[in-house]
Amino acid sequence: MCRWLAYSGSPVLLEELLLKPKHSLIDQSLHSTLGAETTNGDGFGIGWYGVSETPAVFHSIEPAWNDRNLKDLARHLVSPLVFAHIRASTGGAIQQTNCHPFRHGRWLWMHNGFIGEFAAVKRDLVLAVDPSLYAEIEGSTDTEVFFHLALTFGLEDDPPAAVERAVGFIEETGRAHGVEHPIQMTVASTDGSSLWAFRYSSEGKSRSLFFSTAVATLREQYPDNPTLHLVSDESRLVVSEPLGDLAGAWNEVPESSYGVVKEGQDELRPFTPRTS
Amino acid sequence: MCRWLAYSGSPVLLEELLLKPKHSLIDQSLHSTLGAETTNGDGFGIGWYGVSETPAVFHSIEPAWNDRNLKDLARHLVSPLVFAHIRASTGGAIQQTNCHPFRHGRWLWMHNGFIGEFAAVKRDLVLAVDPSLYAEIEGSTDTEVFFHLALTFGLEDDPPAAVERAVGFIEETGRAHGVEHPIQMTVASTDGSSLWAFRYSSEGKSRSLFFSTAVATLREQYPDNPTLHLVSDESRLVVSEPLGDLAGAWNEVPESSYGVVKEGQDELRPFTPRTS
Amino acid sequence: MCRWLAYSGSPVLLEELLLKPKHSLIDQSLHSTLGAETTNGDGFGIGWYGVSETPAVFHSIEPAWNDRNLKDLARHLVSPLVFAHIRASTGGAIQQTNCHPFRHGRWLWMHNGFIGEFAAVKRDLVLAVDPSLYAEIEGSTDTEVFFHLALTFGLEDDPPAAVERAVGFIEETGRAHGVEHPIQMTVASTDGSSLWAFRYSSEGKSRSLFFSTAVATLREQYPDNPTLHLVSDESRLVVSEPLGDLAGAWNEVPESSYGVVKEGQDELRPFTPRTS
Amino acid sequence: MCRWLAYSGSPVLLEELLLKPKHSLIDQSLHSTLGAETTNGDGFGIGWYGVSETPAVFHSIEPAWNDRNLKDLARHLVSPLVFAHIRASTGGAIQQTNCHPFRHGRWLWMHNGFIGEFAAVKRDLVLAVDPSLYAEIEGSTDTEVFFHLALTFGLEDDPPAAVERAVGFIEETGRAHGVEHPIQMTVASTDGSSLWAFRYSSEGKSRSLFFSTAVATLREQYPDNPTLHLVSDESRLVVSEPLGDLAGAWNEVPESSYGVVKEGQDELRPFTPRTS
Repeated sequence: MCRWLAYSGSPVLLEELLLKPKHSLIDQSLHSTLGAETTNGDGFGIGWYGVSETPAVFHSIEPAWNDRNLKDLARHLVSPLVFAHIRASTGGAIQQTNCHPFRHGRWLWMHNGFIGEFAAVKRDLVLAVDPSLYAEIEGSTDTEVFFHLALTFGLEDDPPAAVERAVGFIEETGRAHGVEHPIQMTVASTDGSSLWAFRYSSEGKSRSLFFSTAVATLREQYPDNPTLHLVSDESRLVVSEPLGDLAGAWNEVPESSYGVVKEGQDELRPFTPRTS
Repeated sequence: MCRWLAYSGSPVLLEELLLKPKHSLIDQSLHSTLGAETTNGDGFGIGWYGVSETPAVFHSIEPAWNDRNLKDLARHLVSPLVFAHIRASTGGAIQQTNCHPFRHGRWLWMHNGFIGEFAAVKRDLVLAVDPSLYAEIEGSTDTEVFFHLALTFGLEDDPPAAVERAVGFIEETGRAHGVEHPIQMTVASTDGSSLWAFRYSSEGKSRSLFFSTAVATLREQYPDNPTLHLVSDESRLVVSEPLGDLAGAWNEVPESSYGVVKEGQDELRPFTPRTS
Repeated sequence: MCRWLAYSGSPVLLEELLLKPKHSLIDQSLHSTLGAETTNGDGFGIGWYGVSETPAVFHSIEPAWNDRNLKDLARHLVSPLVFAHIRASTGGAIQQTNCHPFRHGRWLWMHNGFIGEFAAVKRDLVLAVDPSLYAEIEGSTDTEVFFHLALTFGLEDDPPAAVERAVGFIEETGRAHGVEHPIQMTVASTDGSSLWAFRYSSEGKSRSLFFSTAVATLREQYPDNPTLHLVSDESRLVVSEPLGDLAGAWNEVPESSYGVVKEGQDELRPFTPRTS
Repeated sequence: MCRWLAYSGSPVLLEELLLKPKHSLIDQSLHSTLGAETTNGDGFGIGWYGVSETPAVFHSIEPAWNDRNLKDLARHLVSPLVFAHIRASTGGAIQQTNCHPFRHGRWLWMHNGFIGEFAAVKRDLVLAVDPSLYAEIEGSTDTEVFFHLALTFGLEDDPPAAVERAVGFIEETGRAHGVEHPIQMTVASTDGSSLWAFRYSSEGKSRSLFFSTAVATLREQYPDNPTLHLVSDESRLVVSEPLGDLAGAWNEVPESSYGVVKEGQDELRPFTPRTS
C-alpha cells in the first residue's frame, strides 16, 4: 500500500532521515521489500514542525524518487518532528489532496493500509464525521475519512481512545455491509509534541511496523558510531520498514498495539477497537 | 469563474473550435472579457464523442494556454459533439478530479458559476445524492455535487425537469442556511445526441451565455463565407462568450431560460426551479 | 532503461495495444521483467497518425500506470500506426520535453538505451547537429540529440544509412572521450508509412527487441483465435518485451540488426555503424 | 515577461515577502500592473539561503497563485536572502528546468526580459559557454544560457564586469544575426552574501526595476510603523514592481545601471556592455 516514517527527537536535517540511510524511504519508493507492493510511486508527502504553531506539509503527485523539490527541501529543512509518506494508490486519484500526511490544526496523520470495500462503506463513514469537520475533507481517500472520524471521536483529547473508537466504528460499519476484514492499518499521528503509532488489522495480520531502539542502548552497543553521539536520548524513529543496517536497531511493534513517543518514558500498549 | 463552449453538429476538428477562432476559448483562458475574472488558468477539460459508446474526457491542471497536449489533441481529434471548459477556481483544489466536464455513463456536464457558501451547505447537498451515486463523487467541487443531484433527480429521463428540481433543492437548502443567493449558473449537459444549456441565478443576474445563429440564416447573410458552407444546418455552438467577429452570429440566452439542441427544431424555454 | 512498442497495420483502438494485452506496456511500467529496471515510471508518451499530415503526440510526466488521460485516450483513439514509450530516466529531468516519441515533421523517433557518459560527449554531439535543426532541441535527453544527429545524417532520405552514420559518429565521439561502450540502443522510427526498428550496442549485448510473427502464419497456427482474423496480413508489432502469451508469436530481432515494416515484404538486415 | 523580487536583510518569514504585502508577487502572478503581460502563470521559483552552504531552490510549473506548497513553505521558511520569480513564458516549454532562479554552486540568477530572436542566436551563444559548464544547462530558456555566459565571463570573480561582458557578447552576436534589439533585461544575482541587480536593454527602454528606500530613512518618515522597527538597517528589497503602498518606499533603478546590496554602503553604478 504505502510506506511511512515518523521521527521525533533532536532537530535533524531531513536528508538524514529521507535520503542518506541505506534503504531510505526514497529508496523504498522504488524498491520496497516488506510492502504489499514493490513500487510506491503514486505521490508522497512530508510534514514537519518548525517556526509556526501549525506544522508545514509538502505534497506532490510525482514519485518521490525523482522529485527534485523534495531533495532540495530535505537538504535545507531542520526539524525535531517529521512525518514522511510515500503512496501506492489502491485506485484513488493521484492528487495532492490524497497525499499524506493530512493536517488539522496542530495535528498530522498518516496511514498505511486501507478500509475494506471503501466505496461501499464511505457514505456511512462520512455521515458519522462531525458536521463542523465535514467541509474540511478535500480528497477521496479512506485515510482522510479515517482521520476525520478519529477527530470526531476525540483525537485531540485522548488519541488512543479516539482511534480505538474510530476503528471500532469502521469495523461495525464494514461488518454491517458484509465486509470480512474492514480495516488494515498502521497509523501515525502527532500534535507536535507526542507521537502515537498504531498497528492493527481486522484479520490480525497487520502491515509491518518498527520502532528504533533507545539511543542510549545503541550507544552502549556501538560506542564508536559517531551518529549515535549526535542525537539526543529522546530521539526515536517509527517506520514501515527498517532503514540502514545496524543490527539490533529495530524492534517490531506487536500486533494490535500502539506506542507513544513523548517526553519522559515512551510506552507500548495493547490496541483494542471500541464499539459504541 | 469559468468559461465554456459546447458544440453539436457536423464532425469538426477540435482546433476549429478551440484554437482557430478569434477570441477562442484558449485565448479566453488568458484574456476573458465577459467573465467574472480575466484569467481562467486553474485547469481545463474537454469531452467528446467518437468511436465508443461513452464520451472521452481529457482533464489537465495546467492552464489551457500553455498545454501542449491540448494543442496536439485539438489538431487530431474530430467529433460531432464537443464540450470544453476552462476553470477559474473559487478556492477549491486544482486537481483533475475538479476539472469539468464531469461524466456519468453517456452523460457530460459542465458549469460556470457557483453554489453560494458551498462549505456550509455541502453536507446537506451530498446527503441528498442517491447512495448508489455517492461513491462516484471524486473531487471537491460544487459542480460535481450539482451534477450528482441532477442525476439523482432524474437527469437521464427528463433533463430540464431534473435540473429544475436540483436547483430548487439547492435554493431551499441554501436559504435554510441563510444564503441570500444560493446558486449562480450556466450549465451544459448532453447524452451524446441532444444538448441542453441552462442560464439561471438566484439573484436574477446570471453569467453570460450565447448560442450561435442558425447556419442557414448565416449562410444567407454571408454567402461568401466558406466555413458556413462546410458545416451542416444542424450545427450549433453554445458559449460563455462569443467567439470570432461575425456580426449577427451570436444571440444571448435570456435570463432564467434553457435551450435544447437536438435533431429537428431546437428549442428555447423558460427555466423555473422546482421545490419538492 | 525504458520500454517501447511500435504498431503498424489495420487501424486499431489504442487500448488493444496498450491496456488489454496480458503484460501490456502499461503493466510493464510497474512490472517490467526484461528491462534493466523493474519500474518505468518517469513519464511516458504516445504518437499516432490520423487525420492530419503530421502525427500527434501525447506526453506526460506521470507514471503511465496511473494516468487517467492515457486510459481515456486509449479507449477513444484509432490509428494504423502507433508508437508508445514508457520512460525510466537515467538521471535526466522528468519533463514533457524529455518524453518519447520525439517528432520532426512527419517523423517519430523513440529509444531504449543510452549514450555512454552523455554529459562528457553531449557538447561534441550537439555541435554536429545541423544548425538549422539545432533550435528544435528542447529537452535534455541523449535520445533527442541522437534523433537530431540521425536527421542531420539523412534520416528522411535513407533511414538505415542515416542511423548507421549517426551511431558511427556517436561511437567515434565517445571513444575520443575514452568511453568504452558509447551506445546502447533499440530505436524505432517512422515517417508514417514505413517503420524501422534497430537493435545495436557497442558492447554487443543489446537491450531486448522482438517483432511479431506474420499474421498469416499465426492464423494457420491458431485457426480459432478471433483476433487474428480481425487484423490485416500487414499488421506487425515491434516491442521491447513480448505482450500476451501466444506461443510462437514473438521473434527476437538479432543483435546488430534492423527491421523494416512496410508495404510489401518486411525485411530484416544487418546493422553496421558507419564512420566518416 | 516575468516579475521578480530579491530580498537581503534580517531573517524574514517568506510569507512577509511573498504573500502578505498588498500587491504581493503572488498577487502579481494574476494581476501585474507594470509587466509586459497581466498574467505571469507559467510556473515560478524561489531560492533561499539557510542551513547549507548552497542555496535551496523550489521550482513549480503551476501558477504561483494556486500552489499550496508555495503557501505552506512561505509560512514556514525563514531566510536572510531570498529570490522569488514568477514566469510568463515567451514560448518556451513550461517545465521545472525552465523556472528561475537558476543555481550554480553558491550562486543564484534570475531574469525578466529576453534575448531577442533567441532561436536564431542560441547556437552561437551556447558555443561560447565554457565546455566545463556546458553539461549543466538543463532547460531551454535564454536566461539559463545568459547565466552560463556570465559564469563563463567571470561572474564568480567580478559580477558587474562578467555581466557587462556577457551582455556585450549577446549584443555582438545578435547584431551579427541582424537582430535590432538583442537584449532586454532586469537581472538579479547573488553569491549568498552580496546581491547585484541590473537594469539594461539594447533599445534603452528597459523593464521596470525598483529598490526599497533605506530602512533608517523610512523609519524617520514613518516613526509609528512597527515593521520598520523589526527589520535591520541593512534590509533591502529589489523588485520588478513596488509592493505595498508606503509612499516614498520605492526608488526606480535608472536605465543602464546596476545596484549592489552588500555589507556596508550599498552602491548604484552605470552599466555598460563590454565587447571583446
